Amino acid sequence: MSLPNHFELLATDGTARTGQLRTPHGVVRTPAFMPVGTAGAMKGMHWREVRDAGTDIVLGNTYHLMLRPGAERIAALGGLQRFTGWNGPMLTDSGGFQVMSLSELRKVGEHAVTFRSHIDGTMVELSPERSIEVQRLLGADIAMQMDECVRLPAERADIERAMQLSLRWAERSRRAFETASAETMLFGIAQGGDIPDLRRSSAQGLVDIGFHGYAIGGLAVGEPQSVMLAMIEEVIPLLPDDRPRYLMGVGTPDDILEAVVRGIDMFDCVLPTRNGRHGMAFTRFGQINLRNARHADDPRPLDEMSSWPSARNISRAYLHHLVRSGETLGAMLLSEINVAYYQSLMDGIRQAISSGTFSRFREQIRSDWANGDIAPR
Amino acid sequence: MSLPNHFELLATDGTARTGQLRTPHGVVRTPAFMPVGTAGAMKGMHWREVRDAGTDIVLGNTYHLMLRPGAERIAALGGLQRFTGWNGPMLTDSGGFQVMSLSELRKVGEHAVTFRSHIDGTMVELSPERSIEVQRLLGADIAMQMDECVRLPAERADIERAMQLSLRWAERSRRAFETASAETMLFGIAQGGDIPDLRRSSAQGLVDIGFHGYAIGGLAVGEPQSVMLAMIEEVIPLLPDDRPRYLMGVGTPDDILEAVVRGIDMFDCVLPTRNGRHGMAFTRFGQINLRNARHADDPRPLDEMSSWPSARNISRAYLHHLVRSGETLGAMLLSEINVAYYQSLMDGIRQAISSGTFSRFREQIRSDWANGDIAPR
Repeated sequence: MSLPNHFELLATDGTARTGQLRTPHGVVRTPAFMPVGTAGAMKGMHWREVRDAGTDIVLGNTYHLMLRPGAERIAALGGLQRFTGWNGPMLTDSGGFQVMSLSELRKVGEHAVTFRSHIDGTMVELSPERSIEVQRLLGADIAMQMDECVRLPAERADIERAMQLSLRWAERSRRAFETASAETMLFGIAQGGDIPDLRRSSAQGLVDIGFHGYAIGGLAVGEPQSVMLAMIEEVIPLLPDDRPRYLMGVGTPDDILEAVVRGIDMFDCVLPTRNGRHGMAFTRFGQINLRNARHADDPRPLDEMSSWPSARNISRAYLHHLVRSGETLGAMLLSEINVAYYQSLMDGIRQAISSGTFSRFREQIRSDWANGDIAPR
Repeated sequence: MSLPNHFELLATDGTARTGQLRTPHGVVRTPAFMPVGTAGAMKGMHWREVRDAGTDIVLGNTYHLMLRPGAERIAALGGLQRFTGWNGPMLTDSGGFQVMSLSELRKVGEHAVTFRSHIDGTMVELSPERSIEVQRLLGADIAMQMDECVRLPAERADIERAMQLSLRWAERSRRAFETASAETMLFGIAQGGDIPDLRRSSAQGLVDIGFHGYAIGGLAVGEPQSVMLAMIEEVIPLLPDDRPRYLMGVGTPDDILEAVVRGIDMFDCVLPTRNGRHGMAFTRFGQINLRNARHADDPRPLDEMSSWPSARNISRAYLHHLVRSGETLGAMLLSEINVAYYQSLMDGIRQAISSGTFSRFREQIRSDWANGDIAPR
């Protein structure tokens, strides 16, 4: 049974696409970048800044939120949008990935994953059905199926077993989702590690089940970029053109350009906020480490051409001082500067695809990065 | 020689006063509360929020700034206002107090204090003349004389020695300040611990030297509120009516009401931001600990009557979650909520004095605090 389609393709440029996805909380322009509001908060940012930076949609982590403050509590408080005050579109992950990476004593069974909470030590069970229920309680506009993600490098047998389990969980997730609102969406997740035929089987299996959109998971976990791009190329041709495609956990600005050119529509990553907390700024000149002494006496802003006020008006010397002093304001400013950079990159990508100039845009961006930062003064 | 006067008294109500102080960076409405931007940043707040919260003037810490990023560097970058982007009035302390409280191996001599930097271990000398020079380099609208503050309880002999030294330093500070801009100001600081006659001698000595304004230092260091108020009552009658009076390092909202009624015009304190970082909110209902489980399921805001959007719109449940999860956003929101509460209190105080209703205002505020928080739900 085919699910309703809320995605509209507006233009293509080669295999790159731009479009829009309608959600109960508003429209998402694609290609879209989703900053990660882990536990109901974007680290170091007010929600109004997330919005002002040009963000259409954010990602919330089911694992964190189900453990604290709890999905039923958030539902009683009106859902995650109302709870947090972020009143826009939200995608939630299934919780599966973070069970693997954060919890102790986890045990993966056919029925569910059982794990010990890293917060209070209680044992918790997460099944595909419970994951869908939790995501519905949170009020997700887009829910993700539960999957098992294998850390690379891994043996073919392990990758295949996890991929097959993920497909069975995809089927159960889809069934559990049936009764949800006609406006919300469920995405399947293609697994298969770095093995082309497993990636293809996974994608084909998902398309046979049918989802509102399709994600590629288990990448950007340490493998070379070339492997990631090769896997995207295996999967994309099997996915229906009229559905959105989401590359999970990616990535650097360059990863995004390379994935967009191959037909990806959605991304999420903690990089802009995490690197911001570590004194790094994403800019037109590439990534800049504000901790570096060359900025200590530099009255110039990060990028006087930036459309984001903090990137255009605040001196490198002040940012350097804040980072060196461990002042929260340094992390706050760099987080918003980085999210704004990402969103402005996405905006440029969308416009370039619309006008059929994406290749030229991509070359210009990469040439700016290659030229590096302005000379020290 | 009398110094120019930039203070204008607009109204009095008993001994309480309201007025305005003109500085090179704008007008300060008094009674004024100065949030403390320790090292060139207000912890957890953007400068625009400090301003939006109703702040006219902030305090910068000379000790921190002279060690990092350095006074000469800040001067080369255009002064602290330009460096930080806070383009309003700024008062700097002399650095003396924090030499005593933060540095190791400090040695107080007649000429200067020598101490080991807590940042890089170098030995630094701070004299009254150097303190004035540093404050000028920072671009202070109001500079403070260097003084020695004795921790209470202390012997009379120690308190008297430090008070006399502070008076000699006051004289030297005043001389060092002579050549400064005609628009900037220098305040003397009355010391004398908890001993009435020493407080009076100190105040009289300062008035004999002559300053743009007068501060009372060495209080709110752990003594009972009654002692603090008694010392204010000793000093105030000796100070010229037409000059501003600043009670340093104070304090709680109640301390502020009690000091205003006794004729104080200016305050500074880290409480709103520090307590905000520890999950505490200042409200009309008194101080509220958001860590408390009673807030976990409470959809109500801190105070639906507040004029500050975050205090009026964000649920207690969300603030509780942020605090419990250690999310930076919790500290950010509570810091702005607390500074806004303080500034709204000051605004109420100024209006009440103007309309001759300060006693009634004070009783109302205290009765609201006494009634405590709204009942749990």
